[in-house]
Amino acid sequence: MKIAVLGTGVVGVTIATKLVELGHQVMLGARSKENEKALDFVEKNKSQAQASNYAEAAAFGELLFNCTKGEASIEALLLAGEENMKDKVLIDIANPLDFSQGMPPTLSVLNTSSLAEMIQAKFPEVKVVKALNTMWCGIMVNPQMIGDGEHHTFVSGNDKEAKMLVRQILVSFGWKETNIIDLGDISTARGTEMYLPLWLRLYAANNSAAFNIKIVS
Amino acid sequence: MKIAVLGTGVVGVTIATKLVELGHQVMLGARSKENEKALDFVEKNKSQAQASNYAEAAAFGELLFNCTKGEASIEALLLAGEENMKDKVLIDIANPLDFSQGMPPTLSVLNTSSLAEMIQAKFPEVKVVKALNTMWCGIMVNPQMIGDGEHHTFVSGNDKEAKMLVRQILVSFGWKETNIIDLGDISTARGTEMYLPLWLRLYAANNSAAFNIKIVS
Repeated sequence: MKIAVLGTGVVGVTIATKLVELGHQVMLGARSKENEKALDFVEKNKSQAQASNYAEAAAFGELLFNCTKGEASIEALLLAGEENMKDKVLIDIANPLDFSQGMPPTLSVLNTSSLAEMIQAKFPEVKVVKALNTMWCGIMVNPQMIGDGEHHTFVSGNDKEAKMLVRQILVSFGWKETNIIDLGDISTARGTEMYLPLWLRLYAANNSAAFNIKIVS
Repeated sequence: MKIAVLGTGVVGVTIATKLVELGHQVMLGARSKENEKALDFVEKNKSQAQASNYAEAAAFGELLFNCTKGEASIEALLLAGEENMKDKVLIDIANPLDFSQGMPPTLSVLNTSSLAEMIQAKFPEVKVVKALNTMWCGIMVNPQMIGDGEHHTFVSGNDKEAKMLVRQILVSFGWKETNIIDLGDISTARGTEMYLPLWLRLYAANNSAAFNIKIVS
């Protein structure tokens, strides 16, 4: 599949690298076509990898990942252009973390909305699915790293087929189908985004990011 | 031990009943001495159980539980009186849920504060420890009900000895010592209180409250 990964931070590069391993054609999108991390990624992954600006990457991808920083996501997606994302599935991994008040970060949108809802409202013709935002990126693409892969991830979105596609992508990443919980429509992303403050305290208490939650019932 | 449980809802009665089972002397505190649920509790538990208003209950208890509704907690604790709670440990189980906008509830304090911090700031001579607020009360007092008890609970508080006492109470409830995670000072209660929006979506998706999270690492 042709997949665009928007954002060249550690999350974007980790996702993009996994997608290349799985055989996809991947274009990393950045503000500038000369983004060094994107060019590094292309150099390392040769024929399956490309890099460009947000708009060209969005136009290239049949499926899109939002791996930009939460505070910059709306602006990045405006640069990507709704016309380039129309009718496509956008997997939103970003969290609306606000580092301006120091550590740990607070959330800049929460409680009565979420970043995923803001993106869906701003780009109504895009099929936004919130996923994978509740863990460190190393676990996103390698759930077997901890607990024999027996822990959970979540999807939130308004479009049923879009969520089915995202589930298949997650299964290809190594997630067991039964460990992917559909929370409901895009507003349920409030739940997973607002989990971040607990994640941050667990990270501080554990001194490691290699953990995730399992729902025990 | 003499223990006061403030609040006569299902959480308060569940905690109070467990404490009686464990051999403690328990006084349920309510706004009124004639609270029917408290009188029911006394009738069922005879010699180990008493009921009174918040102030008398707080004076009676060597250890206190806040099981009032989050929206009413500060007012209830003002009625309890700081002089009656001075130097005592208060286990705060309440969550600042706001049902005024419909279901699911939002949070009335979050992000840059928490209910637990508000209580600690308002009553500086009380040793506030946030605990057990991340699950249904049936699991609080019977963690073995699910997953062989292998899931986690959290404590947040500024006083080390207070947290040690709370850990022992949790162990007496059936929690394994290793499954009680100390998140740090009282500000870390932001993490556990802000987990509630995810809990509420999991509850809706599962259609059951009998679940909890396990940290897998």
